[in-house]
This record gives sequence, C-alpha cells and structure tokens, in this order.
Amino acid sequence: MSKHFGQAVEDRRSIYAIGKKSPITDQEIQNIVEHSVKYVPSAFNSQSARAVILLGKEHDKLWENTRESLRKVVPEANFAATDEKIQSFQNGYGTILFYEDQAVVEYLQENYALYADNFPIWSLQSSGMLQFTVWAALEAEGLGVNLQHYTPLIEDQVRAELKLPDKWKLLAQMPFGLPLASPEEKNFAPIEDRVRVFS
Amino acid sequence: MSKHFGQAVEDRRSIYAIGKKSPITDQEIQNIVEHSVKYVPSAFNSQSARAVILLGKEHDKLWENTRESLRKVVPEANFAATDEKIQSFQNGYGTILFYEDQAVVEYLQENYALYADNFPIWSLQSSGMLQFTVWAALEAEGLGVNLQHYTPLIEDQVRAELKLPDKWKLLAQMPFGLPLASPEEKNFAPIEDRVRVFS
Repeated sequence: MSKHFGQAVEDRRSIYAIGKKSPITDQEIQNIVEHSVKYVPSAFNSQSARAVILLGKEHDKLWENTRESLRKVVPEANFAATDEKIQSFQNGYGTILFYEDQAVVEYLQENYALYADNFPIWSLQSSGMLQFTVWAALEAEGLGVNLQHYTPLIEDQVRAELKLPDKWKLLAQMPFGLPLASPEEKNFAPIEDRVRVFS
Repeated sequence: MSKHFGQAVEDRRSIYAIGKKSPITDQEIQNIVEHSVKYVPSAFNSQSARAVILLGKEHDKLWENTRESLRKVVPEANFAATDEKIQSFQNGYGTILFYEDQAVVEYLQENYALYADNFPIWSLQSSGMLQFTVWAALEAEGLGVNLQHYTPLIEDQVRAELKLPDKWKLLAQMPFGLPLASPEEKNFAPIEDRVRVFS
C-alpha cells in the first residue's frame, strides 16, 4: 500500500464521480479486500464479516436491478434524480458488498449468553471497521469510492442471484472506480466539542 | 504517522500486557484521537462520535471504579481472575472512551424519518470505524492497545464523575500503554469462505 496510515485516513473521502476503469488490477482489488477481511478484528475473533466483489457485468447488473427495484417505490416525478444517482454508481468499475454472517452472531449468542445482547452491536461495529479499511485502502491505491445503503431493498434479489447463504446479512454497498472529480468540501464541527481530555 | 496503511492494519492487535509509559507525548496521543475523530466518516456527516481521553489518575480511577462495580456482581470465588484482568488494564498508561451522541442520532431520526431505523445502525458502524482508526494509529506509534466493553456497568458512574452529557452513549473502552509482550497467536478462517468474487 502506498500511503502512511494517518494520511490514508485523512484522504478517505466520498467520491461520487467514478469511471469504469481501475488504476490497479482485479487481483489487487481482491487482495485488498481479502487483506482487510483477514486482519480487521471481530468479537471473540468470530470473523463474522463476509464480502462480495462485483466486477464487470455483475457490477452493472447490481445497479440495474437496484434501479428497477427503486422504480417500483419512488414516485415517477422524482425518478429522474434517482436514476441519475444509480447511474453514477453503475458508471464505476466495481462494487463491494459488505455482509455479516448471522449464523456466526447467533452461534455466539447461544454459547455466550451473558453477552447475547451485545454480539449484534459488536458485529455492526466490526463491519464498520472493515468498510472503513477497504475504503481507505482502495483510495490509497488511487480509486474513487463511496458507500451506499440500498438495504433491505435489494437484499433478497442479490442473495438469490449470487446464491449467497441465507444468513448473510447485507449492510452496505461500496461502488468504486477511477475518480473523475475531487471530493466535495467537508464541514467539520469544532473538535473541542467532540474530544475531552482528563488527566 | 510512521506506518503504511496496510501494514498498520495488519499490525493492529490486542495487546493485554501494557505498562504505565508511552513512547509518544500526551499531546501526540490527543492529536491522534482528534485526527481520527475529525476524519472518520459518519452518516450524513453528522459527526456523532465523541471521545474521552483518560490519563494519569483519571485512568487509574476508571479501572478502580470498574473493579468495585464488578465486585458487586461477580461471585467472590471468581473475583481473583476478574481483579487480575482489571489490574492489567489499570497497568496501562491511559484509556480512551468511545461514545456516540444520541442527541445527534435522534436529530437525524426526527429530520430524516425515511432512514429512522438506520441511523442507530450507522452510528454503531461509524463508531467501529473510529475505534479501529485510533487503535491502529496508536499501535503504529509503538503503543500496545486492547478494547474492552464494561458497558453499561460503568456508564452512569463515569458520566457523573466526568460530568459528560446525558445523551453520550458509551460503547467501548480502549486501554493503552507500553507493550510488554507480543500479541497472542491468532487463528484465521479460510479466506475463500469469507470473500467471493463475481465478474
């Protein structure tokens, strides 16, 4: 990877204008996802995270299906804006789907009853860690990335088409591709309202 | 920061043997936490994350209070092991407390009703991103770090003692200090069971 940790954290931004090219190979994309899935922590090292990488026509199909699902629920007068947004994701090179395997979460709940209420919460936090890691790592390699949540709208259809296990729960979709524009300006709240030090 | 992104991801491990020293200054610790809080993303850029850094006697007091809270709920015959564990955290140099401000989450729920069910879920994922970022950044600077969840056991007492806002919800405690031992061996599930590629 080509960036120092803090710089990669700072440079990880939402890039919505992405193109159907990648500065790195498909194998390198897969390596980044696999490295992140392997090393990001999980409660009791339960390794509940699952990831699906969609490239080429599979990436296109995801967003075509999402568009058709939205067409059924978005009022027709608003659909042009929705269509444009979905097209911006489809314009990208690929999409990563982030799942948490509920079979793992339920196993933990059954076997460590004291923490039963916590395992779903920790599973979400662990997935966030993974999403962030993949995002920053792809960005560090020159890709533009954003994060979407068309869930549960598309979950059943994606599971059926890709023949994914029933217990995999879809949390987020991450389109990526060649960045075609700079990130938008970002506003930051005063840090002293957010971090306190006691010593 | 001194490490490349992927290496920092890989080197972030749970270190349970930590000492009451730090290879970096208190100001550098604060800078890392503030940098992470500033740049880690949140839903709608809501910036719901809050962090508290405890150093010196405030760090000691956290773990002394946690020990006394546990003494009331752990059977006496098991308390020696609990006491030893708490002491291992107290042996560290400091602790970071991770919060999510529920006032922000509730504001989003009220103003974007369509996503009301999702904001608490996204808040947890965002907090996971932040916890991971601080963890890896501290590790990259030579600190040993682990992550604990004595929540809600200690939440009310900590809020009262530090006079924190009622709506700040405590999610995790991160003790850190000079690493005194290598991380334990970690087992990894086969990556092909966790990542699938479709192209």
